[in-house]
Amino acid sequence: MLQAILGDLGSPPGRAKVVRTESVLEQHGRDFTYHAPHLPHAVVYPESAVEVQTIVQFAADHDIPLVPFGVGSSLEGHVIPIKGGISLDMSRMNRILEFRPGDFIVRVEPGVTRSQLNEAMQSSGLFFPVDPGADATIGGMTATNASGTNAVRYGAMRDNVKGLEVVLADGRLVRTGGMAVKSSAGYNLTGLFVGSEGTLGVITSITLKLQGIPETTVAARAVFPDIDAAGRAAVSIVGAVAIGRVELVDKLTIAAVNAYKGTHYEAQPTLFLEFAGSKVSVNQDVDLARELCFLEGCGQFLFESDSKARAQLWEARHSAAIALMARNPGKKMMTTDVCVPITELPGALFHARETMERYGFEGSILGHVGDGNYHAGFTIDPNNEKDLRALEAVNSEIVTYALAKGGTCTGEHGLGLGKGKYLEQEFGDEAVVLMRQLKQLLDPVGIMNPGKGVDFLNR
Amino acid sequence: MLQAILGDLGSPPGRAKVVRTESVLEQHGRDFTYHAPHLPHAVVYPESAVEVQTIVQFAADHDIPLVPFGVGSSLEGHVIPIKGGISLDMSRMNRILEFRPGDFIVRVEPGVTRSQLNEAMQSSGLFFPVDPGADATIGGMTATNASGTNAVRYGAMRDNVKGLEVVLADGRLVRTGGMAVKSSAGYNLTGLFVGSEGTLGVITSITLKLQGIPETTVAARAVFPDIDAAGRAAVSIVGAVAIGRVELVDKLTIAAVNAYKGTHYEAQPTLFLEFAGSKVSVNQDVDLARELCFLEGCGQFLFESDSKARAQLWEARHSAAIALMARNPGKKMMTTDVCVPITELPGALFHARETMERYGFEGSILGHVGDGNYHAGFTIDPNNEKDLRALEAVNSEIVTYALAKGGTCTGEHGLGLGKGKYLEQEFGDEAVVLMRQLKQLLDPVGIMNPGKGVDFLNR
Ligand SMILES: Cc1cc2nc3c(=O)[nH]c(=O)nc-3n(C[C@H](O)[C@H](O)[C@H](O)COP(=O)(O)OP(=O)(O)OC[C@H]3O[C@@H](n4cnc5c(N)ncnc54)[C@H](O)[C@@H]3O)c2cc1C
Ligand SMILES: Cc1cc2nc3c(=O)[nH]c(=O)nc-3n(C[C@H](O)[C@H](O)[C@H](O)COP(=O)(O)OP(=O)(O)OC[C@H]3O[C@@H](n4cnc5c(N)ncnc54)[C@H](O)[C@@H]3O)c2cc1C
Repeated sequence: MLQAILGDLGSPPGRAKVVRTESVLEQHGRDFTYHAPHLPHAVVYPESAVEVQTIVQFAADHDIPLVPFGVGSSLEGHVIPIKGGISLDMSRMNRILEFRPGDFIVRVEPGVTRSQLNEAMQSSGLFFPVDPGADATIGGMTATNASGTNAVRYGAMRDNVKGLEVVLADGRLVRTGGMAVKSSAGYNLTGLFVGSEGTLGVITSITLKLQGIPETTVAARAVFPDIDAAGRAAVSIVGAVAIGRVELVDKLTIAAVNAYKGTHYEAQPTLFLEFAGSKVSVNQDVDLARELCFLEGCGQFLFESDSKARAQLWEARHSAAIALMARNPGKKMMTTDVCVPITELPGALFHARETMERYGFEGSILGHVGDGNYHAGFTIDPNNEKDLRALEAVNSEIVTYALAKGGTCTGEHGLGLGKGKYLEQEFGDEAVVLMRQLKQLLDPVGIMNPGKGVDFLNR
Repeated sequence: MLQAILGDLGSPPGRAKVVRTESVLEQHGRDFTYHAPHLPHAVVYPESAVEVQTIVQFAADHDIPLVPFGVGSSLEGHVIPIKGGISLDMSRMNRILEFRPGDFIVRVEPGVTRSQLNEAMQSSGLFFPVDPGADATIGGMTATNASGTNAVRYGAMRDNVKGLEVVLADGRLVRTGGMAVKSSAGYNLTGLFVGSEGTLGVITSITLKLQGIPETTVAARAVFPDIDAAGRAAVSIVGAVAIGRVELVDKLTIAAVNAYKGTHYEAQPTLFLEFAGSKVSVNQDVDLARELCFLEGCGQFLFESDSKARAQLWEARHSAAIALMARNPGKKMMTTDVCVPITELPGALFHARETMERYGFEGSILGHVGDGNYHAGFTIDPNNEKDLRALEAVNSEIVTYALAKGGTCTGEHGLGLGKGKYLEQEFGDEAVVLMRQLKQLLDPVGIMNPGKGVDFLNR
């Protein structure tokens, strides 16, 4: 029956392109992770908010699931259409709509990628700081409340999205927020849609806050004897210095990156650091950070001074997850994403490593430790039921530890298919009931990315 | 009938203190503004979240309006119980619950005031930056998404609240957010309650992000020939310098402050500036800002170097609104609160002054111009219908101008009784419908601060 309705799609919902070839369906039916793939019935490529409205109305009328799709780089099965239906690929909505350099503001369509955005602003002296490792879309980043290496200085998406246009599940178009620096006008709808993982509506435009490129930027690598020492150093640095970036990469990951990118970093737990600001203050910050690293037994503190070596360093860091996958062709990713109050980080890292060892898994640990956010990442054959169950137990122990310390089950990836089950443990029943009521209010028919996030019981 | 039910209040709702003396009812039935006072039937002082739950359940069962009350410093009639009922005074819930200096986090009850909080943290090297002019409660500041002079650097309440405990209109207690730096777990309930003006629930605890006290702080006053020049200077400073504070105070206000505080500032449009950071970077910033001021015709650029003169300067700035009131005893305040994209600020200031002149009103202009947020403030006899209507027209023209430039009708005060009518003009009908649906979902009986904010039609 769903098939029959989708047969109509060739013509009706506006003039949006509809594709149903095997390869395109497959590409929209899976991600990098262990979650089981499931094909959509069709992939639709809207080119405007009005087309999105038509498609959503069509889907609502016929009770067809609708899954917004950016580039599919999310890490918890977010884009997998577990109930089939339409995968709504936003890649054709990739225009930069309005750029106001003097106001540090840009408004874009959701299919714009972060590299596309930063290229477009290159000559302006401005940039958009949020930088997940993948070249994700601004729409996907907004929908997952993504962050990345720059968050310790500039915050996550929620801190950088000023306003949205969203097509709700009944086809209504809602505008939220605006271009002023701040506002106390009415309920904060913007914040509600940021991080909603396609479950409350389709985002069709995003107003972003931009940053000025700092006068001076210096990058460094600090190599440590063990991961706990690196974690402790990160905590003291964050407390003392207005750090630009502080990223932890463990031995295993460094080795994988070297193999994948042809780099020659020493395969030891390493902090990748960046300092930014005026020349004088950067020099002060660097001196202080170096001292703090040495106090924790850091053996080498190396500068990447020219911009090429610096770019290479961050390129290497960004490709860490991909490098790990490349090491294990055919396997899929499972990654934890807890975030703890910063003073709890060394304990959390210790606990994670201990847990992995106890279960006998070789995993990599890396992350945005300046935020107290780290990933324990594993590659796995998703058909190996035993490993899958054991890894889920590891995952669950790591989350339980983080929650007991006041942390969150997901610092940046979002709930997707994998983390919804921890929501009640994190917030208590009442908050989850309220989240479900919000879902019910905004998507009464349940067409928007069903089974994901807060809607995890609906599988 | 309401009276009869409230007769019960002496004993039932927990053991919370209930007061019904004339003076206390009056104190909870008005604010500083032109909005007509209206008495509550009783003032109740809860001492715990459990007591709040009992009171809210009682109010819900008997359909009694409930208006949370901090110190009543809000500027749009927020706390006036226009339908009577219970004024829920949070002043006895004023404990600091948990202080984690290493995580830059504190958790407080809503009745804690900002000066109480900062005093409690004095020896830690940390402070909480959000600073409305009044010594408001953290609960009231959260409920209005308040900001102040520090917002240009540290953001408004929404940027600094990490989590909440809220008693919903049916007595359920919901916990939102947490202590991690960031999270992508579920819908952002925290952001929904920040700025909800007591219309969605009663906030019973707030987790705040703290800041380290900067190494060096320098304050300065830049005196300008006219207000437009001061506005233009503010725009260039914000674009070029990581400024700490940049406040505009016009002639009239300076004169009022001098009279009220015994200061001797020159009665000319003035920017009050603050620079903060490392010593070297502050020096650089000051030099650049001074140059930018002189480019706009600034006649004097004066430092307040020692900490006493600096404190006096900010004390003077903070008391500007009170000083204006003191000049006109017996009168009440009406203030605009628009916030525009920063490049639109000089035009907006020009338009505001021109509008005031056209209508023949002497008003003061002052504000947090680093955010593009300024207030045109008037004192008025609220019984003078003609003046009231004319001033409402001024207010409306100023808002209409700001909205046309991509701004908001309220940068920091909130909607209260006065600004709800601009919501549709600002966001369009659909967003306002959605806001009303949220109100309906969370407060179906309509007991929570009825008639305020989004609920403005319900008078
Ligand atoms: C190598 C690698 C490194 C990564 N590093 C990071 C990192 O450092 N930090 C981080 O936060 N993440 C990271 N990620 C995860 C991923 O990049 C982010 O989750 C990103 O935000 C996903 O964007 P996307 O365009 O791929 O969205 P998709 O994966 O296509 O979609 C993600 C979710 O958003 C929804 N969505 C997409 N577009 C819209 C729209 N227009 N309206 C409504 N909903 C929409 C989808 O339905 C889905 O639920 C990494 C991933 C990889 C593969
Ligand atoms: C001289 C002066 C200067 C000011 N300067 C500024 C400024 O620079 N920036 C700025 O933003 N504001 C400013 N204000 C306005 C005012 O200080 C702020 O709005 C402040 O946030 C109000 O706090 P309060 O404790 O007085 O709250 P109240 O006025 O008591 O209450 C405000 C609103 O919050 C609700 N509320 C209070 N407590 C709770 C709770 N626990 N749970 C749920 N809802 C609650 C109330 O119902 C009401 O709707 C100024 C006011 C004055 C008088």
